[in-house]
Amino acid sequence: MARSSEGRSSLSRAVDVLDAFDSASVHLTVSAVAARTGMPLSSTHGLLAELERLGLVERSPDRTYQLGVRLWEWAARTPGAAGLRSAARPHLQHVHHLVRQHVQLGVLRGTDVVFVERLSAPDAVVNYTMIGGRTPALLSSSGLAQVAFLAAEDRDAVVDGARRQGQLPAPLADPGVLRRRLAAIRREGHVVTDGYVHPAARGVAVPLLGARGEVLGAVSVVVPNDDAPARPLVNVLRAAAARIVRDLAAAQRPTPAG
Amino acid sequence: MARSSEGRSSLSRAVDVLDAFDSASVHLTVSAVAARTGMPLSSTHGLLAELERLGLVERSPDRTYQLGVRLWEWAARTPGAAGLRSAARPHLQHVHHLVRQHVQLGVLRGTDVVFVERLSAPDAVVNYTMIGGRTPALLSSSGLAQVAFLAAEDRDAVVDGARRQGQLPAPLADPGVLRRRLAAIRREGHVVTDGYVHPAARGVAVPLLGARGEVLGAVSVVVPNDDAPARPLVNVLRAAAARIVRDLAAAQRPTPAG
Repeated sequence: MARSSEGRSSLSRAVDVLDAFDSASVHLTVSAVAARTGMPLSSTHGLLAELERLGLVERSPDRTYQLGVRLWEWAARTPGAAGLRSAARPHLQHVHHLVRQHVQLGVLRGTDVVFVERLSAPDAVVNYTMIGGRTPALLSSSGLAQVAFLAAEDRDAVVDGARRQGQLPAPLADPGVLRRRLAAIRREGHVVTDGYVHPAARGVAVPLLGARGEVLGAVSVVVPNDDAPARPLVNVLRAAAARIVRDLAAAQRPTPAG
Repeated sequence: MARSSEGRSSLSRAVDVLDAFDSASVHLTVSAVAARTGMPLSSTHGLLAELERLGLVERSPDRTYQLGVRLWEWAARTPGAAGLRSAARPHLQHVHHLVRQHVQLGVLRGTDVVFVERLSAPDAVVNYTMIGGRTPALLSSSGLAQVAFLAAEDRDAVVDGARRQGQLPAPLADPGVLRRRLAAIRREGHVVTDGYVHPAARGVAVPLLGARGEVLGAVSVVVPNDDAPARPLVNVLRAAAARIVRDLAAAQRPTPAG
C-alpha cells in the first residue's frame, strides 16, 4: 500500500477528509477540513484537489467544499443500505400506515446502528435518529435486536466495544443482566425498550435474518411509552420483517459476477 | 500525494476498485475486481483489505465483496444529490401525480447527467435511465436543459467532450445546429426532445437555476412521443422547478462552517 510521509496511505487520509463533512457541516473551507482532520494545511489542500479531480468532493461558487455526487452514485449500488432500503420500502410504508409513528430500518456496523430509512409522522413522539445517522447499538431497540442474533464472538466484540465507550444503558450495565437480556431477545425474536434513549419513547424492534441466520438489519418503531400492549406492534413488525427478507432474497442475484 | 509503485496514489486506485462495482454487478470476487480494474491480483487483494478495514467495501458470507454502508453514510450528506433530492421530492411527487409518467431529477456531472431521483408509473413509456445511473448529457432533455445554461466555456467543454465520445444525437451533430438549439433552449427556458433516445419517448425538461444563475440540475418528464402539446407539461415543470429552487435555498445554511 502506498504510504505518505506521515505513514498513512492517501486512501486512509482521504477517508478522514470525507468524514470531516457531517450532516451539520455540509460545506467546509480548506482550513476547516485541516482543523477537523488535524492534517497540515498544505497537504489538506493537495488531498482536496485530488478528491475534487476524482469527483468525491465538489467546490461551490463560494469556494467551500462539499461531498461529491460520485459518492452518491456508489451509494446507490450499496446492497447493505440502498438494496435493503429498496426491498424494505413498501413494507415499511405499510407498517407506517398502521402505526402512524416513526418506523425505522437500521443496519449494525461496528458498535453502531446506521439508520438507512425512517418514515415519520408529523405528530410522532420525539426521536433522535435521522437517515444516514448513527446511534450506539445497545442504546436502541434496533441495535439490541441485531446484537442478540450475532455469533457469540461478534456479540462479545460489540458488547466490549460499547462498554469501553460508555454506551450501555444504565439498566443493562451489569454484564449478567445484559447477557440474560440478549438471550431473552434471541428466544422471543423481538425486543421492547422502555425509555432508554428518551423517557417518553418506547422502541420495539424485530431483526431481519438471512437464510443462514445472518443479521441483515432490523425494523423498529418508536411509539409513546404508555401502557398500551406491545404485542400488536410486534406482530406487525414480524410480518413486515418476513416480507422484507423474502423480497430481498428475490432481488439478490443467484451467482456473483466473476 | 502518496504514489504506489505503478505511479498512482492508493486513493486513485481505490476509486477504480469502487467503480468496478456497478448496478449489474453488486457482488464481485477478488479476481473479478482485478479483471475489471486491470490491477495485479496481489495488489487488488491488498487494496480490498484496506477498503474493507475502512468500511468502504464489505465481505459477504460467500466471500464476494460489495460496496460498504459507509459510502451510503457519506452520500446522505451530499448536498448536490441527497440535499437536492430531499428538497425536490414533494414537488416531483406532485408532478408525477399530474403527469402519471416518468418524472426525473438529474444533475450534470462532466459530460453526463446523473439521475438522483426518478418516479415511475407502472404503465409509463420505456425509459432507460435509473436512479444513480448516468446518461450522456446531450442525448437527454435533462442534459440539454442544463448544458444550455452553463457559462460559455463550460458549455463548450461539454460539447467538445460529447463530440469526442460520439455522444451527440444525429439531429444535433452539426455544430451550427447544436449552437442554435442551445441558444433557443436558453431563450425559451425549457427543452422538448422527440425520440432522441427511444423513438416512442419524448423528453421535456426545465433547468433548476440558483440565485447566481448557476445550474443545480433539471426536472424532466418522459412521455409518449405523440401529438399532444408540450406546453401544459412545460408549465407544470416550471412551477415545480421554481418551488424546488426556493425550498433548496431555504434548506441551505447561510454561512459555511469554519
